[in-house]
Amino acid sequence: MRNLDCFFRPSSVAVVGASRNAKKFGHVILKNFMTSGFRGKIYPVNPKADEIFGLKCHKCVADVPEPVDLAVIVVPAELVADVIEDCGRKGVKGAIVISGGFAESGFPEREEALKAAAKKHGIRLIGPNCIGVFDPASGVDTIFNPAYKLNRPSPGPIAFVSQSGAFGAAVLDWANSESIGISKFVSYGNGADVDEVETLDYLGKDDATKAVAVYLEGTRDGRKLLRVAREVIRKTPVVVLKAGKTKQGAAAVASHTGSLAGSAAVYSAAFRQAGIVEAQTMDELFDFTRCLAYQQPTAGDRIAVVTNGGGFGVVAADTMESEGLTPASFSANTAKAIRENMPSYVSLGNPLDIVGDADAERYRVALDAVCRDKGVDGVVVTMLLQTSTLESNVVDVITEAAEEYKKPMVVCAAGGDYTRVHLRVLERAGVPAYPTPERAVKAMAVLVRYGAVKRRNADYGKDAG
Amino acid sequence: MRNLDCFFRPSSVAVVGASRNAKKFGHVILKNFMTSGFRGKIYPVNPKADEIFGLKCHKCVADVPEPVDLAVIVVPAELVADVIEDCGRKGVKGAIVISGGFAESGFPEREEALKAAAKKHGIRLIGPNCIGVFDPASGVDTIFNPAYKLNRPSPGPIAFVSQSGAFGAAVLDWANSESIGISKFVSYGNGADVDEVETLDYLGKDDATKAVAVYLEGTRDGRKLLRVAREVIRKTPVVVLKAGKTKQGAAAVASHTGSLAGSAAVYSAAFRQAGIVEAQTMDELFDFTRCLAYQQPTAGDRIAVVTNGGGFGVVAADTMESEGLTPASFSANTAKAIRENMPSYVSLGNPLDIVGDADAERYRVALDAVCRDKGVDGVVVTMLLQTSTLESNVVDVITEAAEEYKKPMVVCAAGGDYTRVHLRVLERAGVPAYPTPERAVKAMAVLVRYGAVKRRNADYGKDAG
Repeated sequence: MRNLDCFFRPSSVAVVGASRNAKKFGHVILKNFMTSGFRGKIYPVNPKADEIFGLKCHKCVADVPEPVDLAVIVVPAELVADVIEDCGRKGVKGAIVISGGFAESGFPEREEALKAAAKKHGIRLIGPNCIGVFDPASGVDTIFNPAYKLNRPSPGPIAFVSQSGAFGAAVLDWANSESIGISKFVSYGNGADVDEVETLDYLGKDDATKAVAVYLEGTRDGRKLLRVAREVIRKTPVVVLKAGKTKQGAAAVASHTGSLAGSAAVYSAAFRQAGIVEAQTMDELFDFTRCLAYQQPTAGDRIAVVTNGGGFGVVAADTMESEGLTPASFSANTAKAIRENMPSYVSLGNPLDIVGDADAERYRVALDAVCRDKGVDGVVVTMLLQTSTLESNVVDVITEAAEEYKKPMVVCAAGGDYTRVHLRVLERAGVPAYPTPERAVKAMAVLVRYGAVKRRNADYGKDAG
Repeated sequence: MRNLDCFFRPSSVAVVGASRNAKKFGHVILKNFMTSGFRGKIYPVNPKADEIFGLKCHKCVADVPEPVDLAVIVVPAELVADVIEDCGRKGVKGAIVISGGFAESGFPEREEALKAAAKKHGIRLIGPNCIGVFDPASGVDTIFNPAYKLNRPSPGPIAFVSQSGAFGAAVLDWANSESIGISKFVSYGNGADVDEVETLDYLGKDDATKAVAVYLEGTRDGRKLLRVAREVIRKTPVVVLKAGKTKQGAAAVASHTGSLAGSAAVYSAAFRQAGIVEAQTMDELFDFTRCLAYQQPTAGDRIAVVTNGGGFGVVAADTMESEGLTPASFSANTAKAIRENMPSYVSLGNPLDIVGDADAERYRVALDAVCRDKGVDGVVVTMLLQTSTLESNVVDVITEAAEEYKKPMVVCAAGGDYTRVHLRVLERAGVPAYPTPERAVKAMAVLVRYGAVKRRNADYGKDAG
């Protein structure tokens, strides 16, 4: 069993502080394990109850008659170190301490006591002051937001590490609503033991994870983080949103997780050098991660835009230029295919505007042509799905082209409910789909930059060999 | 009747090129008028049909036995000038030419002939190459995207002018899905007669319009646009997304609406000077317009952030600083109210983190305190709605505080379906609500900047008087 496996694949879990009161975290978390498809044993622990949800309740962890791999601890801060001692007597391997009231609240000595107790018994710790772990494949779910308010995402290729619990919870909920699948989620809060570095290392070796998103307020050992990231990135792309980059933000960080935030410029330069993709906003964090999880990086920066709405082409072209992308020049074959198979009023250009009366077949012709074109490194497809002529099956046309040609592709479709359904279908089919042209082009720019990082790494590899 | 009223409040409309074929624009538009609540007379015109949807079909506009205020023209480009002649014989006041195939396709002489015909008969023109007008109050709806794919928004305070039809259509659909109401929509395409300047002037005098959003690719007379905008802005804020700002974007504009795009820096400086708010992205265009439509501009730049999620506070603080906002310092009274009515682990700061177990009542205490504080010019409320303790009625708490104190307020709540429902409720109650802290804080920054513009204008007024 690898280092952190006890958190993601425990055979049994004790919920210490399990409660019948629906507003208590110990209630929500116990319920999560019972309804999430978790296949291990579940033991509620609470000295004041005999039974919760029909499960026998134990006075302490040591009282549980069978082995306990993982303890999830939601008791008041001042009791947590004692619970760890209790866990130690039982041979617990890992503990997730949800409770706050440690270093972040001005009680560093309490956090030291917790760490010392865990170390003494060889117990690995996530937390304190965190929402812990969510793994849709194993059913581990310590998120204390009730599932009727916060929908859990399905299994998928994206791992998400969030120093902030609230941020992490909100994004998981959003991911579900956008049909974005999650491999593993970790919110490590104060990071008394397991931190972003070890988590990143673990996720880099996780087969279910194709890309990692990180919300980071600060780090204790920047060098180590970069060293680990550089290794992870050889196989798995990493996107980081660094919060607390400004003076005001850093002050807010200090009172939130007690981290030192550090200078924005220093972080950005270090990220770039390590090959980490930096997101500037919450939207960008997942916009970038999902395109990296679903699509291959590009072989170059020559991008084609296909659109049935001129305005979207203009906005895409503006964003291409501000992102430093090169509009691909089409080959003679592409020109011929367009000329022979499109109405005369479609003129060859990039953005290739196949005009407002385009149907799915016209998209097929355009995508076949630009995907075959060796002068095109990636394709941004924008579409106004709400026209009378464009049929729903354009979604199949797009996913088929993406599948057949393996050319990096992102999609934009702007609009309301009808459009969103199609965005989600594309997303589930592995084609990242965005609600505005700016966001789609920026995602493509990330595939271009990650491609450059991969080539740079490969070159270093050659030099070394 | 004012200049452009014939487009928004016609007593009768002829749809020239009405069709039974569901994929034809003339089909969709005729259906729109029949189902949108339009209370005037509707006359389909098509020489090849006797009847469409049970309405008698006329061979030409002149054949209609009663007066026709507005003609919507969807026949091939080469026939349009003749249809205008036909309209002239009938005394039509305004014509919306949906058809493309004019200057934008390399036929400037065709566009000149159209203009000349309209001028001869005193007919005002919107278009050609456009999707025309949508007015949910009168039921005028020339948008050729079928309503089953593109939902129409409800009546509301935002006017929207879009040079691009596709962009306009997609945003209307999106507005519906976000419960954002529209007063009037105009997409003028090539702008052969009515252009952005005259539209802006008209909308500035429209009582139903509280803010105007403009998607602009280019303008023929920049000075005139700025002069009119400067007047409009005294009463009605104007937000512009200027597309075609880069070399690539400008090239795309040339082949789209045939406008000259002009330099980004020149436009930005001119917008700033005129008091126009500039949006950099499609998201920003409506993020900014709706906060200006619903909320008063601030009296200063001292902003309070209230949150139940530390991470959201950090991101909000970062954005505050990058937007040049000042974190408000709270008064002794505010400090007292927080200290006396909140648990001891809530510490006074800005962002004011009322902690993960906050309920709606704690938000009420916080909002009452910061809204009463004379050192606070505006309030950004961020909330994680998915906690077990925060009740749905926090939405009422927020709208009541916004109503009672009239202090400019924007809200952020991130998440999935449950959260979105609450965002829409807030939106309908006139409190602009955003899915990320960055977008909420940027919207607040717009209220701050528009406040400064208003004060500057008031000072100029004094000097002049």
